[in-house]
Amino acid sequence: MGTRHLNPEGLHRSPAFSQAVVVEQPAKTIYIGGQNGVGADGEVVGPTVGEQARQAFRNLATILESEGASLANIVHWRIAVVEGHTFDEGVAAFQEVWNRADPPPAITVHVVAGLGPGFLVEIDAVAAV
Amino acid sequence: MGTRHLNPEGLHRSPAFSQAVVVEQPAKTIYIGGQNGVGADGEVVGPTVGEQARQAFRNLATILESEGASLANIVHWRIAVVEGHTFDEGVAAFQEVWNRADPPPAITVHVVAGLGPGFLVEIDAVAAV
Amino acid sequence: MGTRHLNPEGLHRSPAFSQAVVVEQPAKTIYIGGQNGVGADGEVVGPTVGEQARQAFRNLATILESEGASLANIVHWRIAVVEGHTFDEGVAAFQEVWNRADPPPAITVHVVAGLGPGFLVEIDAVAAV
Repeated sequence: MGTRHLNPEGLHRSPAFSQAVVVEQPAKTIYIGGQNGVGADGEVVGPTVGEQARQAFRNLATILESEGASLANIVHWRIAVVEGHTFDEGVAAFQEVWNRADPPPAITVHVVAGLGPGFLVEIDAVAAV
Repeated sequence: MGTRHLNPEGLHRSPAFSQAVVVEQPAKTIYIGGQNGVGADGEVVGPTVGEQARQAFRNLATILESEGASLANIVHWRIAVVEGHTFDEGVAAFQEVWNRADPPPAITVHVVAGLGPGFLVEIDAVAAV
Repeated sequence: MGTRHLNPEGLHRSPAFSQAVVVEQPAKTIYIGGQNGVGADGEVVGPTVGEQARQAFRNLATILESEGASLANIVHWRIAVVEGHTFDEGVAAFQEVWNRADPPPAITVHVVAGLGPGFLVEIDAVAAV
């Protein structure tokens, strides 16, 4: 299995994301459903994007660790933030959890009209091991 | 091919979704585009989330059956509901079509500002066989 | 590797999309993050959906060409358009770049409350080679 992060010439480069990620077979693929700022008790951890994003990243890490993987295995994540909020605090949370030595995943970011009750941010992901 | 549904300790558990689904190779992957409440004639089946979700689930089942698969093979689905509507009727439709003996897929739910004309709900999915 | 485009009986057919695409293993999968109307200099190319969609398609093509692939290898794309705009110009841009001899990808289209600053359209994709 090989994973390669693409940032071809002719496209803008950013340290925050890769333009695409290639996964060669055979690979194990992990489809992670939308993670929110929800703790093990099922409750929303707090009313800010920062708190919720931090918890969502923790959930992603917990899921991946249960498969012997880590955030570095994520090849694409999709972030939704509720209208009226910025993801700036989410970016700060990302910088806390992400090892800058790892090439970042491909990313999609949508500002949505809403999410489940009390949720300000939702992150789903595909990881390859 | 193996498919495993992950609900690791440290995360909230729900009967409605799995936190993630692992697909081991070799697998056949089916990428299903956004399904709406549209019948074979191309027309929207009705003005409610319930009718539309029921038809979207039927469409998903039809697509999967054409590949010898079923809803149980879905590993991740992404549901979009138009602002001002709740997915409660969609959940009821899901409960009608889903065999509770099957581990549920990973899920992402967004409330969006809009979809195609007349659509209140859209469901896309990745399935593995 | 085989890729088959599904349009099973019982579902509406459209020349614009396939209902689903099957990817048989072994395949190389390319996860392409959300592409916007952003040029190589990192700047938004213009204030219209048409200009931005055209550039986003160019970016998709550039990424795929860097892997010896093309737009025809896309199996599913997800298009987000900002509320208040229609994707009509995006469809026109698609018709310019898409070879009609190729079976079209599965598609998901959301109207979202917003995207990154200045962005009116975002397209992410999964391709299989």
